[in-house]
Amino acid sequence: MTVRIYNTLTRRKEPFVPLEEGKVRMYVCGPTVYNYFHIGNARPFLVFDVVRRYLQYRGYDVTYVQNFTDIDDKIIRTANEQGVSAETVANRFVEAYFADAKLLGIQKADVHPRVTEHMEEIIEMIRRLIDKGHAYVSDGDVYFSTATFPEYGKLSKQSLEDLQAGTRIEVSDKKRNSMDFALWKEAKPGEVDWESPWGQGRPGWHIECSAMSRKYLGDTFDIHAGGHDLIFPHHENEIAQSESANGKTFAKYWMHNGYINIQNEKMSKSLGNFILAHDLISQYDPRVIRFFLLSAQYRNPVNFSQELMEQAAQGLERIDTALDNLEHRLGTGEPVQRVSDTDDRTLDHPDISQYRDRFVEAMDDDFNTADAIAVIFDLVRAANTYIGTAAATVAGVRAYRDLIVELVQVLGLLRETDEHDLAEEVEKLIHERNMARQQKNFKRADEIRDRLNEMGILLEDTPHGVRWKRK
Amino acid sequence: MTVRIYNTLTRRKEPFVPLEEGKVRMYVCGPTVYNYFHIGNARPFLVFDVVRRYLQYRGYDVTYVQNFTDIDDKIIRTANEQGVSAETVANRFVEAYFADAKLLGIQKADVHPRVTEHMEEIIEMIRRLIDKGHAYVSDGDVYFSTATFPEYGKLSKQSLEDLQAGTRIEVSDKKRNSMDFALWKEAKPGEVDWESPWGQGRPGWHIECSAMSRKYLGDTFDIHAGGHDLIFPHHENEIAQSESANGKTFAKYWMHNGYINIQNEKMSKSLGNFILAHDLISQYDPRVIRFFLLSAQYRNPVNFSQELMEQAAQGLERIDTALDNLEHRLGTGEPVQRVSDTDDRTLDHPDISQYRDRFVEAMDDDFNTADAIAVIFDLVRAANTYIGTAAATVAGVRAYRDLIVELVQVLGLLRETDEHDLAEEVEKLIHERNMARQQKNFKRADEIRDRLNEMGILLEDTPHGVRWKRK
Repeated sequence: MTVRIYNTLTRRKEPFVPLEEGKVRMYVCGPTVYNYFHIGNARPFLVFDVVRRYLQYRGYDVTYVQNFTDIDDKIIRTANEQGVSAETVANRFVEAYFADAKLLGIQKADVHPRVTEHMEEIIEMIRRLIDKGHAYVSDGDVYFSTATFPEYGKLSKQSLEDLQAGTRIEVSDKKRNSMDFALWKEAKPGEVDWESPWGQGRPGWHIECSAMSRKYLGDTFDIHAGGHDLIFPHHENEIAQSESANGKTFAKYWMHNGYINIQNEKMSKSLGNFILAHDLISQYDPRVIRFFLLSAQYRNPVNFSQELMEQAAQGLERIDTALDNLEHRLGTGEPVQRVSDTDDRTLDHPDISQYRDRFVEAMDDDFNTADAIAVIFDLVRAANTYIGTAAATVAGVRAYRDLIVELVQVLGLLRETDEHDLAEEVEKLIHERNMARQQKNFKRADEIRDRLNEMGILLEDTPHGVRWKRK
Repeated sequence: MTVRIYNTLTRRKEPFVPLEEGKVRMYVCGPTVYNYFHIGNARPFLVFDVVRRYLQYRGYDVTYVQNFTDIDDKIIRTANEQGVSAETVANRFVEAYFADAKLLGIQKADVHPRVTEHMEEIIEMIRRLIDKGHAYVSDGDVYFSTATFPEYGKLSKQSLEDLQAGTRIEVSDKKRNSMDFALWKEAKPGEVDWESPWGQGRPGWHIECSAMSRKYLGDTFDIHAGGHDLIFPHHENEIAQSESANGKTFAKYWMHNGYINIQNEKMSKSLGNFILAHDLISQYDPRVIRFFLLSAQYRNPVNFSQELMEQAAQGLERIDTALDNLEHRLGTGEPVQRVSDTDDRTLDHPDISQYRDRFVEAMDDDFNTADAIAVIFDLVRAANTYIGTAAATVAGVRAYRDLIVELVQVLGLLRETDEHDLAEEVEKLIHERNMARQQKNFKRADEIRDRLNEMGILLEDTPHGVRWKRK
């Protein structure tokens, strides 16, 4: 059993084999911070947050990088309109991103690099591209020369000839070839600029991700992800830049999520038919928004409507209610046969491990959260039936409670009140350690043991599984 | 590599293992013939038609049964309103079904059994259920006793207790238990009826599928399929009836397609927001409707809109145009290097077999037509580029043409003009024979050879593959 990922580069589901055993290095294209993000923007942040959580659940040590584009035309325009600096605008919406993301259960990346803090790396990469003959200076701008990268088009499955056929070079154009794109743009009056070997200016859009991913993840890393609309030209250009500069494969797996539609039209700022996550959060419990967006497998389009949100709210409530009922039974000790509290705490009730297996199967299958949620519903239904039977035991009720918490947590859908239970945290870490050991990633397993040790927890490996106690 | 099917019974994707090697027995719930079918009804007929075609492509010998419900309340009501017999109404819409299905490329089933022609089998199965204590006569009706089937609810994952909790028995009710359902209903004045051991009457809705599937496919068969809304109660009740009567597993794999939504509401006759396939066919090329419905994997919801139909029309046109261009090149002999026409006709161009592999991978993965169509688009793009190169050969152009035709045909999307090409037909059969032989289904392979023989085609196995010629 391995995780399988639909790789846009090959257009097929492939078994996930990390570059370095037990480790995953992952880069997700983040927001341009000139406004609140709309829920169409939120979808990649949210689905790749689940990808990250699930890979961790499968025992991988994940390094997760998500950038902020904190300088571009739209930021500058907004700043000019409001009579403030571009930096002020960017800072305001970086804060807004973190606030909304937190409400939606999107964890912070390990690094959130910002363009304006990485000018040195960006300039250095442009210089290397010029030196190798992949880029040229033209009248204060620098362009990438697509003709020098024979594989151009390999991600979007287009040939350079086809692409060129659809454009024409204007007489005034500074480019040699219509498909060439800017790495550096000459400064314009009234815009913030930086010093470079080619004069004052600022970077083009694409180079930032090539330069910053390289800094934090190396020349080659495992997963590069983003919205479907980034395949071309953004990710195609990133590949051209990075592979030309570094002479190595850029990212091994390319993941792209589908659109959110409103009235069957793609939600987008430019179409004007968007719903800000910010606004939606004031109408709905953010967990409902998260649950709604995870109800479809990430590659499928999602249609937004109030009705579907209501359905999502009801679905989530079923899970919450089941958890409440299970907790209630554990608290009141109603069960007919009471068994020792400590004996079975990490032992599953015999019938229920099939639900974990099915959940893992669904998520292994290109992170199919739709099928995974169906499994959680089945588990909830089984738990509801179980607590109604005369044979229900404390151990059984706890097994159901623990498994629901475990699976719901992987999707980042647990209520805060459930979240801060030491036992859950410990058992989640124990599970991660077991997965790491199964994958013979003993280094990671030891790291988790150390972390538990810091938390004051001692582990004991027994023939019946792992037991834990407080020091 | 095997076909994997998401089985509603287990809520997981399972490798498809047929009961009898090389053979598939499959039952799809057909229409109630009281009106034209709407495109929400059309989806199961169409997606399971593709399942059938694909299993044949993979070398299986498929027996496909799809019933007509030709007697029920709605048919009787329509007949009374129009002052004609129920039979007249049914016959009219059976014909309409075949006409619309043909336009949509839905092939005829091997058997289309009708309820009114199977009263003997239905009555015999009811009698057996009564004899075994699974059904009881009550005031001229016969009911299935759900309490006698402990596994009731296993398909829809509900327990009998939960289901009963949601209903109550009326004092006047003829049933022992609120979840019991009618196998036979006493005749009412002004309705057509049949003689039975329990008096004049007509069968309940569910028993027909149990009785007719048994007649044509046996006690146990491979695949039972239908729309998602049939899971409960229809398919749940079929399982209860068949497994109680026959004492054996009913169907091994249960497949259910997702809904079609209009304005985010499920399309349904009772909600009044439906679009008749009949009406749509007058607006669009029926192939476009078919292509549109196959653009999503069958378990995902599909949202209907004119815009998405336009997109589908454009997508299909890209494929058709590519085929036209390839045919044109073959007809005019424009290619730079001409090679012998006969030598390479079944040989793939070296680079292109990856597209077949990817197509098979996508379809093996629970019949993911969305991903399969993406592969066809990639292939079309590659073909367009290929014919623009100086190195294009007749053999290469033909390889592209043949592969596009082969894959498009599996989805039932080929234009009629392309369809009746002897070479295609022969090569399709040769491919099916190769697949059958790979699966060591030599009986099927021989059957195909015999069929080709009848068509006047001789096969010759060579180290480079199979050659064919006219006798």
